Amino acid sequence: MKSKFKSNLLKDKPRTACGVFGVFQHPEASVLTYYGLHSLQHRGQEAAGIVSSEFKTEKKRRHFNIMKGMGLVTDVFKDYSMLRNHLGGDAAIGHTRYSTTGSANNEKNIQPLVVNYRDGNLAVAHNGNLTNFRTIRTELQKEGTIFQTTSDTELLLHLIARSRQKKQIDQIREAVNRVDGAFSFVIMTDTMLVAARDVHGFRPMVLGKKDGAYIVASETCAFDILDAEYLRDIEPGEILVIDRKADVNEPLTSYRIDRHVPSSHHCIFEYIYFSRPDSFVFEESVDKIRRKLGKALAQEAPVVPDKDEKTIVISVPDSSNTAALGYVSESLKQGVNTKLELGLIRNHYVGRTFIQPEQGQREMKVKTKFNTVKGVLKGKKLVVVDDSIVRGTTSRQLVKLLKEAGPKEIHLRISSPPIVNSCYYGMDFPNREDLIAVRCNEDAEKIKEYLGVDSVHYLSVKKLLASVPSGNGRGYCTACFGGEYPAPIENVTDKNDLET
Amino acid sequence: MKSKFKSNLLKDKPRTACGVFGVFQHPEASVLTYYGLHSLQHRGQEAAGIVSSEFKTEKKRRHFNIMKGMGLVTDVFKDYSMLRNHLGGDAAIGHTRYSTTGSANNEKNIQPLVVNYRDGNLAVAHNGNLTNFRTIRTELQKEGTIFQTTSDTELLLHLIARSRQKKQIDQIREAVNRVDGAFSFVIMTDTMLVAARDVHGFRPMVLGKKDGAYIVASETCAFDILDAEYLRDIEPGEILVIDRKADVNEPLTSYRIDRHVPSSHHCIFEYIYFSRPDSFVFEESVDKIRRKLGKALAQEAPVVPDKDEKTIVISVPDSSNTAALGYVSESLKQGVNTKLELGLIRNHYVGRTFIQPEQGQREMKVKTKFNTVKGVLKGKKLVVVDDSIVRGTTSRQLVKLLKEAGPKEIHLRISSPPIVNSCYYGMDFPNREDLIAVRCNEDAEKIKEYLGVDSVHYLSVKKLLASVPSGNGRGYCTACFGGEYPAPIENVTDKNDLET
Amino acid sequence: MKSKFKSNLLKDKPRTACGVFGVFQHPEASVLTYYGLHSLQHRGQEAAGIVSSEFKTEKKRRHFNIMKGMGLVTDVFKDYSMLRNHLGGDAAIGHTRYSTTGSANNEKNIQPLVVNYRDGNLAVAHNGNLTNFRTIRTELQKEGTIFQTTSDTELLLHLIARSRQKKQIDQIREAVNRVDGAFSFVIMTDTMLVAARDVHGFRPMVLGKKDGAYIVASETCAFDILDAEYLRDIEPGEILVIDRKADVNEPLTSYRIDRHVPSSHHCIFEYIYFSRPDSFVFEESVDKIRRKLGKALAQEAPVVPDKDEKTIVISVPDSSNTAALGYVSESLKQGVNTKLELGLIRNHYVGRTFIQPEQGQREMKVKTKFNTVKGVLKGKKLVVVDDSIVRGTTSRQLVKLLKEAGPKEIHLRISSPPIVNSCYYGMDFPNREDLIAVRCNEDAEKIKEYLGVDSVHYLSVKKLLASVPSGNGRGYCTACFGGEYPAPIENVTDKNDLET
Amino acid sequence: MKSKFKSNLLKDKPRTACGVFGVFQHPEASVLTYYGLHSLQHRGQEAAGIVSSEFKTEKKRRHFNIMKGMGLVTDVFKDYSMLRNHLGGDAAIGHTRYSTTGSANNEKNIQPLVVNYRDGNLAVAHNGNLTNFRTIRTELQKEGTIFQTTSDTELLLHLIARSRQKKQIDQIREAVNRVDGAFSFVIMTDTMLVAARDVHGFRPMVLGKKDGAYIVASETCAFDILDAEYLRDIEPGEILVIDRKADVNEPLTSYRIDRHVPSSHHCIFEYIYFSRPDSFVFEESVDKIRRKLGKALAQEAPVVPDKDEKTIVISVPDSSNTAALGYVSESLKQGVNTKLELGLIRNHYVGRTFIQPEQGQREMKVKTKFNTVKGVLKGKKLVVVDDSIVRGTTSRQLVKLLKEAGPKEIHLRISSPPIVNSCYYGMDFPNREDLIAVRCNEDAEKIKEYLGVDSVHYLSVKKLLASVPSGNGRGYCTACFGGEYPAPIENVTDKNDLET
Repeated sequence: MKSKFKSNLLKDKPRTACGVFGVFQHPEASVLTYYGLHSLQHRGQEAAGIVSSEFKTEKKRRHFNIMKGMGLVTDVFKDYSMLRNHLGGDAAIGHTRYSTTGSANNEKNIQPLVVNYRDGNLAVAHNGNLTNFRTIRTELQKEGTIFQTTSDTELLLHLIARSRQKKQIDQIREAVNRVDGAFSFVIMTDTMLVAARDVHGFRPMVLGKKDGAYIVASETCAFDILDAEYLRDIEPGEILVIDRKADVNEPLTSYRIDRHVPSSHHCIFEYIYFSRPDSFVFEESVDKIRRKLGKALAQEAPVVPDKDEKTIVISVPDSSNTAALGYVSESLKQGVNTKLELGLIRNHYVGRTFIQPEQGQREMKVKTKFNTVKGVLKGKKLVVVDDSIVRGTTSRQLVKLLKEAGPKEIHLRISSPPIVNSCYYGMDFPNREDLIAVRCNEDAEKIKEYLGVDSVHYLSVKKLLASVPSGNGRGYCTACFGGEYPAPIENVTDKNDLET
Repeated sequence: MKSKFKSNLLKDKPRTACGVFGVFQHPEASVLTYYGLHSLQHRGQEAAGIVSSEFKTEKKRRHFNIMKGMGLVTDVFKDYSMLRNHLGGDAAIGHTRYSTTGSANNEKNIQPLVVNYRDGNLAVAHNGNLTNFRTIRTELQKEGTIFQTTSDTELLLHLIARSRQKKQIDQIREAVNRVDGAFSFVIMTDTMLVAARDVHGFRPMVLGKKDGAYIVASETCAFDILDAEYLRDIEPGEILVIDRKADVNEPLTSYRIDRHVPSSHHCIFEYIYFSRPDSFVFEESVDKIRRKLGKALAQEAPVVPDKDEKTIVISVPDSSNTAALGYVSESLKQGVNTKLELGLIRNHYVGRTFIQPEQGQREMKVKTKFNTVKGVLKGKKLVVVDDSIVRGTTSRQLVKLLKEAGPKEIHLRISSPPIVNSCYYGMDFPNREDLIAVRCNEDAEKIKEYLGVDSVHYLSVKKLLASVPSGNGRGYCTACFGGEYPAPIENVTDKNDLET
Repeated sequence: MKSKFKSNLLKDKPRTACGVFGVFQHPEASVLTYYGLHSLQHRGQEAAGIVSSEFKTEKKRRHFNIMKGMGLVTDVFKDYSMLRNHLGGDAAIGHTRYSTTGSANNEKNIQPLVVNYRDGNLAVAHNGNLTNFRTIRTELQKEGTIFQTTSDTELLLHLIARSRQKKQIDQIREAVNRVDGAFSFVIMTDTMLVAARDVHGFRPMVLGKKDGAYIVASETCAFDILDAEYLRDIEPGEILVIDRKADVNEPLTSYRIDRHVPSSHHCIFEYIYFSRPDSFVFEESVDKIRRKLGKALAQEAPVVPDKDEKTIVISVPDSSNTAALGYVSESLKQGVNTKLELGLIRNHYVGRTFIQPEQGQREMKVKTKFNTVKGVLKGKKLVVVDDSIVRGTTSRQLVKLLKEAGPKEIHLRISSPPIVNSCYYGMDFPNREDLIAVRCNEDAEKIKEYLGVDSVHYLSVKKLLASVPSGNGRGYCTACFGGEYPAPIENVTDKNDLET
Repeated sequence: MKSKFKSNLLKDKPRTACGVFGVFQHPEASVLTYYGLHSLQHRGQEAAGIVSSEFKTEKKRRHFNIMKGMGLVTDVFKDYSMLRNHLGGDAAIGHTRYSTTGSANNEKNIQPLVVNYRDGNLAVAHNGNLTNFRTIRTELQKEGTIFQTTSDTELLLHLIARSRQKKQIDQIREAVNRVDGAFSFVIMTDTMLVAARDVHGFRPMVLGKKDGAYIVASETCAFDILDAEYLRDIEPGEILVIDRKADVNEPLTSYRIDRHVPSSHHCIFEYIYFSRPDSFVFEESVDKIRRKLGKALAQEAPVVPDKDEKTIVISVPDSSNTAALGYVSESLKQGVNTKLELGLIRNHYVGRTFIQPEQGQREMKVKTKFNTVKGVLKGKKLVVVDDSIVRGTTSRQLVKLLKEAGPKEIHLRISSPPIVNSCYYGMDFPNREDLIAVRCNEDAEKIKEYLGVDSVHYLSVKKLLASVPSGNGRGYCTACFGGEYPAPIENVTDKNDLET
């Protein structure tokens, strides 16, 4: 079975690893999960899946119903009767996926993963990346364990199944304590839903409630669509247990991972790009942060118009819309004559299988997604606010497209620092040598020249950190901007060394 | 064969009838058509098709290759080899469709329609609606003509085939002269490409060139994606012939429809809503017009903030983004303390087959498409700029959603007049009695109450007409706003009286 | 839409053109049609279709429901609910198709064809081949008629629609009188079912009844599966009308085609190969005739065993099973020591999409369908009874396969005369020059050598005619065996001269 | 993913468990496997799969390519390029499946099963049924093993992976020694192909060679289609190793399972029904045995015709064709005036998804598959030879159908003894209480009455055993006829106790 889904169009953005969702003891568990996943679609568009837990009276035990497939949530789940008839039950977990480990197009790797072991059914959905994956996998294989997927998530299932602990929650705790790196797990068994987050708190995960049932999700936007209430974040290092005794009026049982870190290391890219602006992430509004990033950019690198003119500011829709708003408002505040314009129109129908022209026409890629509004840009000093540059190839094409609309100058303002390192905690960057900042030795002049703009400015790490919440043990991972890797990295020699 | 595509999500917008495209004497005709259709996707998402004309050496004649299907352009055409292998040839026409006549889900109605008649192959793509369709159809049926589709487009093919004229162009002229109403036809034969537009010029159609070949399309955005040059509009009443002698440096042959109208009657909704803002339509930038509409709204109905506060203005993304920009800039000019904000986040992954909740949860419809950015709206005087209201049901739900974010007041500003009449020229409105303006007797107070807002203002017809280009025989159809119907309407008793 | 069905495996048999079925005024019309088509599957495996006529109360008129597709009846109609939900109504016609005119894989050509004309719905299913197809088609095209298919069946629809007759039955009569050649039509309108058969009676068609409703079908085996009663044949030149007044206890109205032929010209191949042995065709049991053909072969060309041995007789299953039985029984009667054996095992799972090896391995074709039972054949004088040889390529491979089982001698006995001419009345033979009998100049010695057998004998035309019913105006077409063509043939220069 | 394949039409036959095939060191391994599986299609029509072993130069290791799917071999493998492009390599194993354990429609259970473990790739195809499946599964689960399928075949993979043996062949030997019951395994690793057969030799497995490469298969008919040479049977209890050193001119290495049984226990139903008549099974021609069974029936229960008449003998095509031939020839030898006839015509197009009528029309089932040739049976004393009766429901309907053709008497002759027990060695019978022989207490009078025949006779166990080869340690399992179960049976309380 070959997948009909090809890789994404404009890969010149970091891509994150998945959205997770879980709900326990709600009569419409799979329906809530469907809507929740829909609002987490931006976290992964390659595949989606839902697993529901249903008590089968005739068998006197629970059955885990599974529906998974390649594509968007709306591609995989086509009608209501699918949810009603094939995903019955009062608990469910779901997943939208952009793969980081495991071959993207391998259908076996689509999550949630489900198995049956001696203590019953077990399902898991995972956002993140386990950094001691290969070490443990090799160890388990030596003992005779057979792996069915190339995904790091399967590891957790084997660790649970092989645990010598008697109580299931202790098996899960033991397993979660074995794995390193970035993880926000939602685990479903016959009797409980467990949410576990790594000690660094790399990836977000939030707790909510609706109709007296608990919900967990990657972002709060999944609560909004359900009119659910956002209670709090799952804490870094927390293993939270929602079982049949769980009462939304009483505190839940939770355990802590036995590892101490002085502060959390939230992925700061969640604020810059990944999360939806209408979400609360790491206990703060993403919209608010992005606005601050735009303002900070305007402080660090204002673009003053020529006399009697205005500087035109545009975003690259939709991801930098908010930052552009912030940039304009700060500029005006500082007395710079600036105006927000809609200079780029985005075609949202591009879809996953857009036919790309053959070699020699790379700019077509950008043209199928964007067009300029010519009158608006002609003869103007133009500021383009974007959130990040990875390879630089798309940005370069975009600049070329903008130039056709005849602006006087183009000034690129990036609401993140230069990306100079790989991520091992769940973001998908190209190899280090393909990063534009690395290729140009972080030399702004070279980057400017490559992109063909009149100036380029990246937000400084300092300003970035000053724009996000701090205190209370909060910290951020800035490894990709040249900072330290907070969690140990496995020595990986071959990215493709796993057989399915 | 039942279609897997269901009807659209948020139907509370007028919907137009299709995008057309044609190219003649270009070695990559179908590839250009694919990209052109992609950029015309907003004009119809229910089906797409391409027909290419290829000379088959072994048969010593031209063959018309056909690929059509339900869904988006990217759903129907999945890979390059489909274009190369199945749509070869040096001429092609294409169509994106939202049906007005003919059952939406009837695959036989997907355009371009293609037949073979005594003088060879014949294909046609049509944007518009023929108002003497039933009259001519009945007449032809009486003479023994068999109709294969329920679409009005098929009529043209029979009229051409049954013409007693010897020369093919004369057959086409005769046929085009027989039909009334709104039409922008692209007709392909073995020897030429013909573009024909009704005398009123209801729907747009433009002429361009690329690599020495002529191109026609519904909007200029289809030229931008191809780096093609926009030459001029096909004129109202023009029948333009592009044949093998056509030289991009010489004037083309064109004929005129034998009917005189004192001025054109462009569909003004093309400016308000249908066309893409980056297009030139009726020889003017759509972006520019929309901006004016927003400004006009701010003049007619400003919203003054309470002391020491700002009025927050948001658009309903993406269709009213430009009007909102205009509204803000005019407000500021008038000294009203106003600020543009991103208050609504739109989920672009909704897709065509989104599972809707069952009865009793209508507001879910809006929630799957929009979410609010809460901090931005809380406690503010809020102006929501939208382009039009049809039924009002979606607007009402949207208002409800916005209220949850806690604004102090909500003021709705609509950049078009109230819709009070059906359209017979290619737009799809619900029955008259379902229009909110009709239901509320155009009483602003009642509409305000129904929608739950603090004030609502529709742009006046007068201001609307003052905002669009005039002179040079230009005129606009404002029938849906209570104006006259410029072209005669058939007496239609039953919308569903056609069998497939 | 490309067909996934490839052409048949073993093409070395003549192939006939289709099975037809119709039922009128039965509450389960489409279900009966489904079963009827299933039992007519042997008459065409490339496509199948059912059209049912249902009164739609809300529209106050009849609607014709259509389901058609490539493949077997069981491929196209997959479950009961399809019949119940999509093919409701109290009348239906159906078709199984092997194409003779019209491109085999063209989905538009799948029958029944359905159109809507001034007097309502019209559907037709056709078995046969119209010999003045091109003449009339050209004439109609000159008058402006557009053809949607390349099938000759569409002609009839246009002729009916264009008739100036007022009464529908007169339109149908006029149309049927215009066409020449071989046809068994089943025509359904809103008010009646009409069965029409050409004056020669080339193809079979029978009338039956079940539960007070009339049924027509190509062969009586379609009645057996339904426990329906076989009443009589539709007569050559008869136009039989079954309308709502039709009473199974009263004679039906029927008209005659206005053309006189001295006798009928049944296709004698229906007895030899096409029809199922359990059917009555041309008012006689096919099984009985085939048995006679086998006996006649044994009379004309007995194979005497060596002393103290037995001649082993095998059939090529399943088509020549009956003839082989007849051969053995006649041989025994004549004192020839003969024994029927099962020497060839046929693999019935071959299916329509069997992967064929690439060039150079033609014998694989036979091996995927047949295997020998080695012990049975070893050292024996072997008689192989087969019904016909067309190209000879398959027979040659079969002989090669049989030889591997080590028989002493192989004697081929064919229960039909050599095929030396094309058929224009509905059978599909290769070009004349590809026929083995033509290639070998009907020289038995050459044929024997080519096939690699010890002797070959074709049944004589004389014996063949003596084995089938005669008298009462009965006659047979033996054009393919070198006899006269009873109906005039159009001068066809190019088999592929039609565009779709 | 729900299967589109429904269960079989006429389930009133015992059904066996699968065909297996393997080839090592042949450049066209997957092509040979495709043809081999095609000829083993009768052993399982629910699913098919091929796994090929290909050396990937760029990865410097072998990759196992997998293609599996529901349906016939020709449904799963549609064209040559699939084999060439997706199943490259020089070794392959394949499987056709009718499930015995594991849910039939579970796609995960389709074989061959493939995993990757510490020593590389591992694939297995299995015919049979492991009788200590649940015991070992429970034991492994306790140790933390996760099972991915409900099939007993997966057990072997875990046993191999968990073996502490260093050498791979020793791991395989250890695993094969752990399992009980009926098995013919074909195991493929990166370095070898291993064929292993249980000590009883329940299911057949043969060794052949082609072009210097070794082949293993369930039956010799898979060799015939390939022009391969049949060398010998894999012996009961043999573990045969074909590795890269294997030379078709030298003896292969083989090991023995460490368990002693005094004689083999071949499944005698392989002769009666399962195997193809053109195969050699248990070193004897199936055709020859079936002929003997027919003769034995004629000896035990002749049907003497009335004076001056003949007894008509028919088979139920195609499975009892050979036995009917034997019956007739023995009858004639004994001077009983008997004649073989083709009284039943079988419709081979039934397919897997035939639409069955709803309740109350069970006889339709038989009618869609069989029709009678009426003239042949009318007024005759009729002997119907069939191979077995399981539930009796189909036989009863068949008798009803035959009676409509008006025979004087119907005498049923069954070429096997009454089935009175379940099979645990790979055949799929209904529950014991559904067996007709059990329901009627093996009382021939009651069975006769239930079926509606004039007499019924089952072949005696004694005669059956006298008809099959004996000596040389050969023995047969006759457990289903009331004999002993030669291999121990697990105490199974719930057939559906496995979760997927």
